[in-house]
Amino acid sequence: MVSSKDVAKYAGVSQTTVSRVLNTPERVKKPTLDKVLKAIEELNYIPDANARSLVQQRTKTIALLSGPLHNPFFVDTTTAIVNYATDHGYKVNVQFVNDKNLNEAYATAIATKVDGIILSCILYDDPIFDRLKDMNIPFITYNRKHKKNEQFVEIDNFEAGYLSAKHLIDQKHTQLAWVGGPLEVSTFKYRYEGFLKACNDYEIQLPQEYIIQTDTSKKCCFEALEKLMALENKPTAISTGSDSIALNILDYATKLGIAVPETLSIVGIDNVELSQYGSIQLTTVGSISERNLGLLAIEELIKLIENKKKSCNSITESVKVFPRSTTK
Amino acid sequence: MVSSKDVAKYAGVSQTTVSRVLNTPERVKKPTLDKVLKAIEELNYIPDANARSLVQQRTKTIALLSGPLHNPFFVDTTTAIVNYATDHGYKVNVQFVNDKNLNEAYATAIATKVDGIILSCILYDDPIFDRLKDMNIPFITYNRKHKKNEQFVEIDNFEAGYLSAKHLIDQKHTQLAWVGGPLEVSTFKYRYEGFLKACNDYEIQLPQEYIIQTDTSKKCCFEALEKLMALENKPTAISTGSDSIALNILDYATKLGIAVPETLSIVGIDNVELSQYGSIQLTTVGSISERNLGLLAIEELIKLIENKKKSCNSITESVKVFPRSTTK
Repeated sequence: MVSSKDVAKYAGVSQTTVSRVLNTPERVKKPTLDKVLKAIEELNYIPDANARSLVQQRTKTIALLSGPLHNPFFVDTTTAIVNYATDHGYKVNVQFVNDKNLNEAYATAIATKVDGIILSCILYDDPIFDRLKDMNIPFITYNRKHKKNEQFVEIDNFEAGYLSAKHLIDQKHTQLAWVGGPLEVSTFKYRYEGFLKACNDYEIQLPQEYIIQTDTSKKCCFEALEKLMALENKPTAISTGSDSIALNILDYATKLGIAVPETLSIVGIDNVELSQYGSIQLTTVGSISERNLGLLAIEELIKLIENKKKSCNSITESVKVFPRSTTK
Repeated sequence: MVSSKDVAKYAGVSQTTVSRVLNTPERVKKPTLDKVLKAIEELNYIPDANARSLVQQRTKTIALLSGPLHNPFFVDTTTAIVNYATDHGYKVNVQFVNDKNLNEAYATAIATKVDGIILSCILYDDPIFDRLKDMNIPFITYNRKHKKNEQFVEIDNFEAGYLSAKHLIDQKHTQLAWVGGPLEVSTFKYRYEGFLKACNDYEIQLPQEYIIQTDTSKKCCFEALEKLMALENKPTAISTGSDSIALNILDYATKLGIAVPETLSIVGIDNVELSQYGSIQLTTVGSISERNLGLLAIEELIKLIENKKKSCNSITESVKVFPRSTTK
């Protein structure tokens, strides 16, 4: 069987160089990289990353438990996380998690030996938090956080909800509806509380039927809009729990022929890339920083894994309104 | 050190059951799953997937080399691939590949022991094809194919290009431009050839400045549109090499105040989810099947890995026009 020693000899380099090509190819100069890859090819050498990782006790692998990509927030964050990790020599095991497969996702992530876990799917009151701490695996949550208020990266969700409502109130709306996601999730919980606080501060009446907590699927968002539009006294504006919800509602409003913003104003939260698209131009609330939460979280996680720090910073990014074309 | 035997004893199940929880949790009944997970938690057992895979000679891991997610085609296919693989008990190492990091991506994918590789990034004349064959790793390409014409899943790209032009010609356009990607990629090569054939069949003149081969980044698409709109004799319609390009051009046209389709018609190819969005409604050419190429490819790959077949089918899906609002 061909060994890495044979490859080194054949390529005329040291075994350390072969090892560097296998572990951190991005740090090897191109001529050397090419020489070693050629040797690997010609000798038909199959490097055994698993045997290697047993010796090193490191897998150079991170588990990413992301929300689904039909939510454009996770398009932006998955891109940032995977690219940053790849650039730093890590492989990323990706799973897309929803409320139905949450436990299976955790089981799979834990059953695999990984150097760290980065997850967006955690519930506010989720037992996984203590379990990961007990197992001593470096981990961080992004977007959502656990009630223990540790190891997370988020935007200021309360302020985001507050600014969403205030933006509409500033434009003289008095009939504001809320369509958000489940309250056992920190993001939706705090965004909703911020929305309520602004309505309270500005003495806006909130009829019960104006408040919809739903899930973020297209179907549920469509149904939420139908319910609101069937009311005798319709809202003139909707604050939503996320851009994903806002974009689904805007999609359906367009299909129903509801004029946005003339008849109905819509505000999102997250400021995803897609919200800036030419024919979308969604008004939204998002981080004042251009660096997305996925990027901030993977940077922290890799510092933890590489022992550059003992515990990770919890980061709450400030937010502002991005006024575009879906409100007036 | 706690072993899986200890876990089995503690949970009151067989070692085989513990192994099933670790390998294919989705196939274990919930009460059993919970019991074993509880035992794992309470004993603080860290299952060593790597040690396990050395014995089994299988890693239950697939490497996915996908194009970037700012191309919505890869949003749809990455979702399908990761979810299908996860449901079948495989982990997926994801990398987002562009022309700049192609070799590093291959090096990383090969340096890791995986059960199979699924890739969209292959060039028409790419040496990786023979290398993967020599290494005897199950693999399949989707969207793009290699010139050897094996182990791929694609749409009928020539026909797609042909139908794109014909759709515009049927609507009385005679000034058709083409904005596509690099011709060393099978998709763009055949789509462009199909476009040329239709123009030839219907005796459409193609001034050289109407043909732009660019890369698919937002910046390059914007520049392509600027070039076409700066011509004295402007095209009235653009056939594009992909929905990604079409969506970038549509975005910029909207921002420039160019009326689509009144002043300019735009056609895509791929029929990505996003093309159906309320305020986008992109006319495009896509597979007549609702099952996307990523899904077809991962199904084939897993059959290969599990020895359910000796060699993989090469699949070319038929296409049709999806007329929406960006052409007239």
